[in-house]
Amino acid sequence: MRAGRPSSVRAVDAAALRLQFPVLARVAYLNAGTCGPLPRASLEAARDVWELAESQGRGAAYFERLGAMRERLRAAYASVLGADPLDVALTTSTSEGVVRVLAGLELGPGDEVLTAPDEHAGLLGPLRALRERRSVAVRTAPLAELPDAVGPRTALVACSHVSWTTGALAPEALAGLDVPLLLDGAQSTGAVPIDLSALGCSFYAGSGQKWLCGPMGSGMLWVSPAWRERLEPTGLTYVNLSDPAAGLAARPLPGAARHDAPALALETVAPALAAYETLASAGLSAVQRRATGLAARLAELLAGSGRLIAPRGRSTLVSWHSRDPVLERDRLAAAGVVVRDLPGTPLLRASTGAWNDESDLERLLAAL
Amino acid sequence: MRAGRPSSVRAVDAAALRLQFPVLARVAYLNAGTCGPLPRASLEAARDVWELAESQGRGAAYFERLGAMRERLRAAYASVLGADPLDVALTTSTSEGVVRVLAGLELGPGDEVLTAPDEHAGLLGPLRALRERRSVAVRTAPLAELPDAVGPRTALVACSHVSWTTGALAPEALAGLDVPLLLDGAQSTGAVPIDLSALGCSFYAGSGQKWLCGPMGSGMLWVSPAWRERLEPTGLTYVNLSDPAAGLAARPLPGAARHDAPALALETVAPALAAYETLASAGLSAVQRRATGLAARLAELLAGSGRLIAPRGRSTLVSWHSRDPVLERDRLAAAGVVVRDLPGTPLLRASTGAWNDESDLERLLAAL
Repeated sequence: MRAGRPSSVRAVDAAALRLQFPVLARVAYLNAGTCGPLPRASLEAARDVWELAESQGRGAAYFERLGAMRERLRAAYASVLGADPLDVALTTSTSEGVVRVLAGLELGPGDEVLTAPDEHAGLLGPLRALRERRSVAVRTAPLAELPDAVGPRTALVACSHVSWTTGALAPEALAGLDVPLLLDGAQSTGAVPIDLSALGCSFYAGSGQKWLCGPMGSGMLWVSPAWRERLEPTGLTYVNLSDPAAGLAARPLPGAARHDAPALALETVAPALAAYETLASAGLSAVQRRATGLAARLAELLAGSGRLIAPRGRSTLVSWHSRDPVLERDRLAAAGVVVRDLPGTPLLRASTGAWNDESDLERLLAAL
Repeated sequence: MRAGRPSSVRAVDAAALRLQFPVLARVAYLNAGTCGPLPRASLEAARDVWELAESQGRGAAYFERLGAMRERLRAAYASVLGADPLDVALTTSTSEGVVRVLAGLELGPGDEVLTAPDEHAGLLGPLRALRERRSVAVRTAPLAELPDAVGPRTALVACSHVSWTTGALAPEALAGLDVPLLLDGAQSTGAVPIDLSALGCSFYAGSGQKWLCGPMGSGMLWVSPAWRERLEPTGLTYVNLSDPAAGLAARPLPGAARHDAPALALETVAPALAAYETLASAGLSAVQRRATGLAARLAELLAGSGRLIAPRGRSTLVSWHSRDPVLERDRLAAAGVVVRDLPGTPLLRASTGAWNDESDLERLLAAL
């Protein structure tokens, strides 16, 4: 859990880290923005769980291990966010964290949510529903202009920490607003340094399956201490009550755990924790420094080869204009290079992680 | 998917079915009410998915398979419920279905929810939160008396189809009420025949990991056609929008799929489907008939040995009074018999499935 500190002075042993990810032996995997590569340790952790469940059933031993590993995963995610585990909920995805916040704020007529027009569907979809069903006003402004666009009715600003289309960063001036801020951390959690107090947000939703290399169905939601008791818990169930046997007298758990997803399986939690440990062993800060460095290098190489790069920040995403993104994506896939197109845009996007190296970038350039 | 029909005339080949569940070679597993035994086919399906993800990454092939298998799982669950797949959402648990309904009904001051005092925490927990946060009145009456307890302010009746403590069934008279009915099907889905129109419910939440023998994190929510468009979708994300690339113009999917959980993994969906297919091959109706028959037999045996059985219905649960349920549960576990205690009650509970046989019941009786 304390791996972040010493790592700041050492570099990643890239060759050793690379060997932990079997997929890298086959392809230039540059798509952590969809799902990260799975480390060997995750596969082993999953296999152990399935064997336990098959041979002993899913009884006391399964649930005891699950309970303990959930708290270890919460602490792991807290260390990624530089947060207190008390303020971290375990979710199944960034999107689940986003909807938990949007549902729990009890917004209604007269309230306005300010967002950017090119945010992910996991944010815009539920915002549209709030507009339709609860008469919440939804107004958009470009990500960089959000701080100046806040108005008297703005009850929430909701946007990416790192834009999923371009890799641009949320403007620093968001930190000074006197309005709650929900950051969508899908493309930032594990990828870039996160300083919650500098960001000035009230809520931070993140993914476990992208730069943290865990299974689908892993994720987190950080809720600031100021909102700990205020955000309505709309997903209460057995796992997030302090005394589930108390019936109608049962109270939500203290802290963000009251927003935990209801049915996280040991088959998910154990591999997610194993993936985190693989990265933490290499040093999280060093892992992030290497990943952002590789992205900057890729942007240089692409610009040098005449591609038009979408304006980006110090992130792990590089997007460039393509005449036919789907065709180009498929051509790259056939050459063993995995990137993605971004539907509704003229862009192709590559994601870098510390597990990548120059050879992956060269394969992409060569295949283009 | 059509396995239910022909099975109604044949019996289960119990010995063959039993061989599909490795845990039964070791213990008398009588705890499907917590989690069902996992069939061999589920383990194999999970292993296949992990190997795909490790070797190729989680890209196009992973998501194409996931998309197809999600719809097959939806159809499978629909066949368990005798429902149209259009009306079935894929959730991670019964509890997730319950909270989706409670959040989506937009209840407020003046509304009353009627429930039974011994319902599961997955229902009572969120009801308490509605009372505290939204001034919704929550009134209780014993399960059997709910139909007569409905009052002028009752906006929802919410209760078990099969009581998790006693195995009693919801009263048939609930079908005639002029009030929406939410049934908690945690202890009934896959275990007993379900006739949604005879039950007269508007919402039916069920589990995938109990009598359907799938992984933790699988489940379903049936929403009646009358509520299809009315129930507020409070969990919208990429997967349940008709056109996620349309930004703020994206609409929810038609049907109950708009209530799908956000991040179901192929690692969950594929083993859940494999488990269903194991049971469907044996014939779902025959599987249910055998399971309820074994429970009735167990109740007879326990009564014959002087145990006081909690009043039950034609279900797959048998609960009996114990002077020290935790001690007795542990003693049984040491003798290779898996049952559970029910915190807050003086009861021990055994669950039967078609995979059990007389030898399991005899081991339980001998160990008592």
